[in-house]
Amino acid sequence: MGSTSDLPVMQEAIDILKKFGVETEVDIVSAHRTPEKLFDYGKNAHSRGIGVIIAGAGGAAHLPGMIASLSPLPVIGVPVKSSNSIDGWDSILSILQMPGGVPVATVALNGAKNAGILAAQILGSADSEILDKVIAYKNGLKEKVIEGAKGLKK
Amino acid sequence: MGSTSDLPVMQEAIDILKKFGVETEVDIVSAHRTPEKLFDYGKNAHSRGIGVIIAGAGGAAHLPGMIASLSPLPVIGVPVKSSNSIDGWDSILSILQMPGGVPVATVALNGAKNAGILAAQILGSADSEILDKVIAYKNGLKEKVIEGAKGLKK
Amino acid sequence: MGSTSDLPVMQEAIDILKKFGVETEVDIVSAHRTPEKLFDYGKNAHSRGIGVIIAGAGGAAHLPGMIASLSPLPVIGVPVKSSNSIDGWDSILSILQMPGGVPVATVALNGAKNAGILAAQILGSADSEILDKVIAYKNGLKEKVIEGAKGLKK
Amino acid sequence: MGSTSDLPVMQEAIDILKKFGVETEVDIVSAHRTPEKLFDYGKNAHSRGIGVIIAGAGGAAHLPGMIASLSPLPVIGVPVKSSNSIDGWDSILSILQMPGGVPVATVALNGAKNAGILAAQILGSADSEILDKVIAYKNGLKEKVIEGAKGLKK
Amino acid sequence: MGSTSDLPVMQEAIDILKKFGVETEVDIVSAHRTPEKLFDYGKNAHSRGIGVIIAGAGGAAHLPGMIASLSPLPVIGVPVKSSNSIDGWDSILSILQMPGGVPVATVALNGAKNAGILAAQILGSADSEILDKVIAYKNGLKEKVIEGAKGLKK
Amino acid sequence: MGSTSDLPVMQEAIDILKKFGVETEVDIVSAHRTPEKLFDYGKNAHSRGIGVIIAGAGGAAHLPGMIASLSPLPVIGVPVKSSNSIDGWDSILSILQMPGGVPVATVALNGAKNAGILAAQILGSADSEILDKVIAYKNGLKEKVIEGAKGLKK
Amino acid sequence: MGSTSDLPVMQEAIDILKKFGVETEVDIVSAHRTPEKLFDYGKNAHSRGIGVIIAGAGGAAHLPGMIASLSPLPVIGVPVKSSNSIDGWDSILSILQMPGGVPVATVALNGAKNAGILAAQILGSADSEILDKVIAYKNGLKEKVIEGAKGLKK
Amino acid sequence: MGSTSDLPVMQEAIDILKKFGVETEVDIVSAHRTPEKLFDYGKNAHSRGIGVIIAGAGGAAHLPGMIASLSPLPVIGVPVKSSNSIDGWDSILSILQMPGGVPVATVALNGAKNAGILAAQILGSADSEILDKVIAYKNGLKEKVIEGAKGLKK
Repeated sequence: MGSTSDLPVMQEAIDILKKFGVETEVDIVSAHRTPEKLFDYGKNAHSRGIGVIIAGAGGAAHLPGMIASLSPLPVIGVPVKSSNSIDGWDSILSILQMPGGVPVATVALNGAKNAGILAAQILGSADSEILDKVIAYKNGLKEKVIEGAKGLKK
Repeated sequence: MGSTSDLPVMQEAIDILKKFGVETEVDIVSAHRTPEKLFDYGKNAHSRGIGVIIAGAGGAAHLPGMIASLSPLPVIGVPVKSSNSIDGWDSILSILQMPGGVPVATVALNGAKNAGILAAQILGSADSEILDKVIAYKNGLKEKVIEGAKGLKK
Repeated sequence: MGSTSDLPVMQEAIDILKKFGVETEVDIVSAHRTPEKLFDYGKNAHSRGIGVIIAGAGGAAHLPGMIASLSPLPVIGVPVKSSNSIDGWDSILSILQMPGGVPVATVALNGAKNAGILAAQILGSADSEILDKVIAYKNGLKEKVIEGAKGLKK
Repeated sequence: MGSTSDLPVMQEAIDILKKFGVETEVDIVSAHRTPEKLFDYGKNAHSRGIGVIIAGAGGAAHLPGMIASLSPLPVIGVPVKSSNSIDGWDSILSILQMPGGVPVATVALNGAKNAGILAAQILGSADSEILDKVIAYKNGLKEKVIEGAKGLKK
Repeated sequence: MGSTSDLPVMQEAIDILKKFGVETEVDIVSAHRTPEKLFDYGKNAHSRGIGVIIAGAGGAAHLPGMIASLSPLPVIGVPVKSSNSIDGWDSILSILQMPGGVPVATVALNGAKNAGILAAQILGSADSEILDKVIAYKNGLKEKVIEGAKGLKK
Repeated sequence: MGSTSDLPVMQEAIDILKKFGVETEVDIVSAHRTPEKLFDYGKNAHSRGIGVIIAGAGGAAHLPGMIASLSPLPVIGVPVKSSNSIDGWDSILSILQMPGGVPVATVALNGAKNAGILAAQILGSADSEILDKVIAYKNGLKEKVIEGAKGLKK
Repeated sequence: MGSTSDLPVMQEAIDILKKFGVETEVDIVSAHRTPEKLFDYGKNAHSRGIGVIIAGAGGAAHLPGMIASLSPLPVIGVPVKSSNSIDGWDSILSILQMPGGVPVATVALNGAKNAGILAAQILGSADSEILDKVIAYKNGLKEKVIEGAKGLKK
Repeated sequence: MGSTSDLPVMQEAIDILKKFGVETEVDIVSAHRTPEKLFDYGKNAHSRGIGVIIAGAGGAAHLPGMIASLSPLPVIGVPVKSSNSIDGWDSILSILQMPGGVPVATVALNGAKNAGILAAQILGSADSEILDKVIAYKNGLKEKVIEGAKGLKK
């Protein structure tokens, strides 16, 4: 993530990945304040055995796109509605509208939980154990809604 | 994709995946006109050996999100600026703003090429041959820009 | 509705329909978490004697449009300004911008009361008792405004 | 509709209703240029045996909402992207965002065809012949998509 | 104004007109709830000696435009950011985007004070006493800013 | 107006005022390129016997607001969708959103005709001859719509 | 700045410039309330030895653009999200979308700190002492992020 | 600039700087396709004697902000309405909404000419010869408007 202030949002990605038993590495890399660290991180992540990168940032959010330009790994971008953001529009458009050749897999505004699930799905495409956990998780969502519906009927 | 009218946009995903040597299956599944087919497709894709699903749609674009609700696979959504779309905003927001639990990896408006590259990156996370092709492709982009810059200097 | 969190908004539709003496059935059907229930609900509602369906949802709101794709009944969509919505724009556009062939009768953001009134008007087109209640209700609105204007003059 | 210039858009509603065998009355009533006619039309439509009103207008589109304030019938509003409209946003918001008590069933921008289908669904809730035609129409949409998918496979 | 809930905003117009010594008449006329009163008001205002009409409303704000369609007087519209408004955009566009032939003099969102000043300027174009008060008022604004600047320097 | 390129839009104001028999003065005053002329114009217009000022501009349109800050006369602002404008949003917001104390009577995007009518209405509030012409003009609009409706019936 | 109410935002520019040892002059100049002062200020600033002007304003923010039209100096504009602003969009577009010939260097919404840094960078292009302070400041930002990242690891 | 496709827009900056006698260096540096070149360029520009950097890009435009993160020089950003941009909003917000500490001096959409003038103004703050040319240029603008106004009178 680009700043410690993004942690409350990004924590949801960490939590859900832990729940899926996926090992995570959490770091602060600011595209605008630590460009050298950005460079090192993006260039070397895939050699260090990392499989998917989740990058969250707000405002003119350049972190996800710059990581995507430096790494061959799939990069998931989380637009963060930070204090300096205009209702989140700047964060969304800065991450989503990448030029041809350099995709960022963008999720909903503040959608860090979904970023974590998507990362698990990506890893799960080659790891049936993780895939089964994703399937179990989705079944859990279903049951919760059905419970809610039952509660409403009463 | 949701309609044959989306083909000119979605063709770019097919083309780039062919270039990466990734086998593709192309079909029309309309969330609103063929909900039964949507259901079958989403429920069974992962058992049929499919690894990643790319879904493109315009306007109130429900196809990517509904496929994501039915399948445990990673789903990439391509917002299409179709003739009934309001400058693409409806397509983008209908695909991007998925609720917690059901992510769609959204790419730029009409960004089918990037959807193809992202699919290759996802498959490449467990297939070094594809990963190498992605790396080579990115190097090709770089060289093309450097050529362009040289041309400009002259 | 798609989630119990939509109930505070959707309750207004239930209340006004009770006031018009229209029988209502309230349920939670999540397009993204319980797609099978969505399917059953949409396919069978008209055979079960239901006359109009009101569907409320927020964010990438696919419930109203998917019900409309599955049912021949008129479907009224209520865009909900939920916590994960971008000022309601995503909810509105996901419900309103349906493709040709599958309409959703969309009302204002959080306009569940109007959804209830519209449902009564639809049923009232073939039931003069309900129509008379709608006319009486509208007269009540008028009198309230006139009372307000009198209060202001004093 | 509010102006003859809306006819090319609104014609789709007329055509689909004819296809469903629903009798239609077509007229120009301008909220801003013929307020007296608006008043007469709105006040008397339900006594003249009309069952549903479709009102299309662009820009600061007041016709659908004013008809809804004058008539107890269900009113379907079609936002028209007219020449004086700002990408259709003004037309949509002027029709959709009605205050509590006076609903307008809004369809997509330029969605006159869907307005016609919705009108048929409303009338069909008390007329099984029309309902059957709606069901047949929806099946036709499905078959067309399936044909398109077959063509694509070849 | 369209509703008593608009009074806190519209009071500023009343106050500033009192300050300019302009006689005002305050009333509630709802385009959607009391269309008959709207009609009477709009048709007869100019015969009753009224010189300018200020109309404030929120959401799908039809009051200013409908008054303008019924009256030959200049109509000033105040978009109100009411509780059912989408950040005020619906109020602004419903009032501003009037079709050719029927202008509404629109002021800023919640700009009732400016509506009052504008009304005074309109009346002042034929009444030098009011014009002089407008000039004095503007001089007062200037002095207040200059005082503020002096305070800042200290 | 701010530039000769605004003339095709602004001509409609000139034409309709001529039709109402109102004398007009047409000039180019650029807030950004000729600030001295702006200053002189705004300061002296009311002493030269001018009754209403119509100012049209596009993009960051400062002309109407600056004239309003310099003159006690009512100022009508026409947002022009010029080539450097972002779909007209910049023009509208720069003219409409004036601070308390300095109103601009804003009309629709490219709504120069309505600016002319509004100017006639303002002058007509103290000149019954102009008022009668406005009333006749509005009756003409009505008849044209009724003719159009008749044509449609045939 | 245009009003004392802008001071809490603009103070950040003053503070950072003090930190860089750049002498500042702070004043209130309202484009709409004190146009004469605006004129004097803009015309004479460069002769008084001022090197860069920072102008902040909200709503229909004309101050930065008018100063830029009057002065040959680089003008930095700060869009302020004031109480009368529509989420800041009006402030941004009124400052950013200047016509060809009269640039304003626009920074982020409420971005007064960045306006101060930009002013220092502009002055630093001819003053290596200031440039060195800018470089030191940027290094400080970097270290703070790296400290934050370390804290996170623990 | 980020791509040769931006050249038609950016040429205006080159042309106006030539007119002011300012030496320019034109290059293609893609943040997303040539991140290494971006890095070298940003890190070394100020040591190579460059005084101001103009960076133009479209869509998720990261070039201006990344250059600003790497260089102590003032960076001017030109949002380009490229073919993959959503009406320019993504380009504007990606460039404008920079976080505290790393400003980009943003000009209007496609405002390359203004970027050139702003660069001249920045250099002119320490070079009276350039400043005089800026003053002469602005006088030229004024004369052109006055000529246009004269033509209109005839």
